[in-house]
Amino acid sequence: MISADVPDIIIGRLPVYLRALNLLLEEGREIIASQELADKLGISSAQIRKDLSHFGEFGKQGTGYEIKYLREQLRKILKVDRELDVALVGAGDLGHAIAHHGNFDRNGFHIVAVFDHNPQKIGANMGRFQILGSESMPTVIQEMGIQLAIIAVPADSAQQVADILIKAGVRAILSYAPITLNVPSKVRVQYIDPVVHLQRMTYYL
Amino acid sequence: MISADVPDIIIGRLPVYLRALNLLLEEGREIIASQELADKLGISSAQIRKDLSHFGEFGKQGTGYEIKYLREQLRKILKVDRELDVALVGAGDLGHAIAHHGNFDRNGFHIVAVFDHNPQKIGANMGRFQILGSESMPTVIQEMGIQLAIIAVPADSAQQVADILIKAGVRAILSYAPITLNVPSKVRVQYIDPVVHLQRMTYYL
Repeated sequence: MISADVPDIIIGRLPVYLRALNLLLEEGREIIASQELADKLGISSAQIRKDLSHFGEFGKQGTGYEIKYLREQLRKILKVDRELDVALVGAGDLGHAIAHHGNFDRNGFHIVAVFDHNPQKIGANMGRFQILGSESMPTVIQEMGIQLAIIAVPADSAQQVADILIKAGVRAILSYAPITLNVPSKVRVQYIDPVVHLQRMTYYL
Repeated sequence: MISADVPDIIIGRLPVYLRALNLLLEEGREIIASQELADKLGISSAQIRKDLSHFGEFGKQGTGYEIKYLREQLRKILKVDRELDVALVGAGDLGHAIAHHGNFDRNGFHIVAVFDHNPQKIGANMGRFQILGSESMPTVIQEMGIQLAIIAVPADSAQQVADILIKAGVRAILSYAPITLNVPSKVRVQYIDPVVHLQRMTYYL
């Protein structure tokens, strides 16, 4: 696998390919032509072939992609062919919705610890989770070797939470807080801010 | 404003600049050097200056950006200097969380109609909203002239919902459904799928 210097933008498309292949498998499909996959995703088939060519030969001229095989390869490339533990920080409404989002478990992402700093929430149950106090974050994350975290706290405490997570060993953060986090270059961050997403479209109205 | 052919990737960064300026204003700041803004956002100051240069001259050499002025200009460029009506489709857990996400109203995005196809939900209240039946979507959206919609329905009904929305006049869709939508080129779509966001980072672990 020749993957050392694949551009981020290509890596960013692979989960979208994977998602489409998962859906096709659920529909009972076995083979898909690159053109049909391209039409489904609104991406050119040349782009898909070029993206995948960074990692090997996956399709056959004339027959298309063997869906199950390509799916397994993408899962390996993205390192999601294993179970991954995730810490969730913030047990408010948003944290609650995230903790109960079934798609995480289905895709191998298991929320294994939920933290909050509100004394009234600590020790309480949120679904199948017992909410832990923020002060236990460093120990729990280190002991469990958690590398992935989701931040669902307000903007004004997100940076502090990120600093603690990273110090404890977290390497990738999905942040719902509407603020850009300052992190060392070895740490990855992805943001979900629906306002930013909407504002990316209003320009074109 | 010279904006006809500004690359999408630049437009995509403007809401992030705007968000940072909003936070700075809340902190009582008036001026920011492009280097400080760059450090906050993890983007080079040259990139910020280049991005903004597509729309005019906003900073002064040596003094930096006047925050309030730049914020107003960005709001105009992004067309968020006005109140915008938004339709929400899907009144499940996710729809509920979205409808109560305070940041929308604060940023001028007003959810004005919530739709669901579940007969047990139609007519019920979800916070300040009375849930409308899906069959009223075309009429309500057309009559209210709604151009923005948020889709929070399962993957298997998202395309059908999108088709109805677009036919009724919606021009921009924020979709939480884990599927790529097929839309005409005049329609913009942004996706929020936390699993895809996580999978964009696991590669680097």
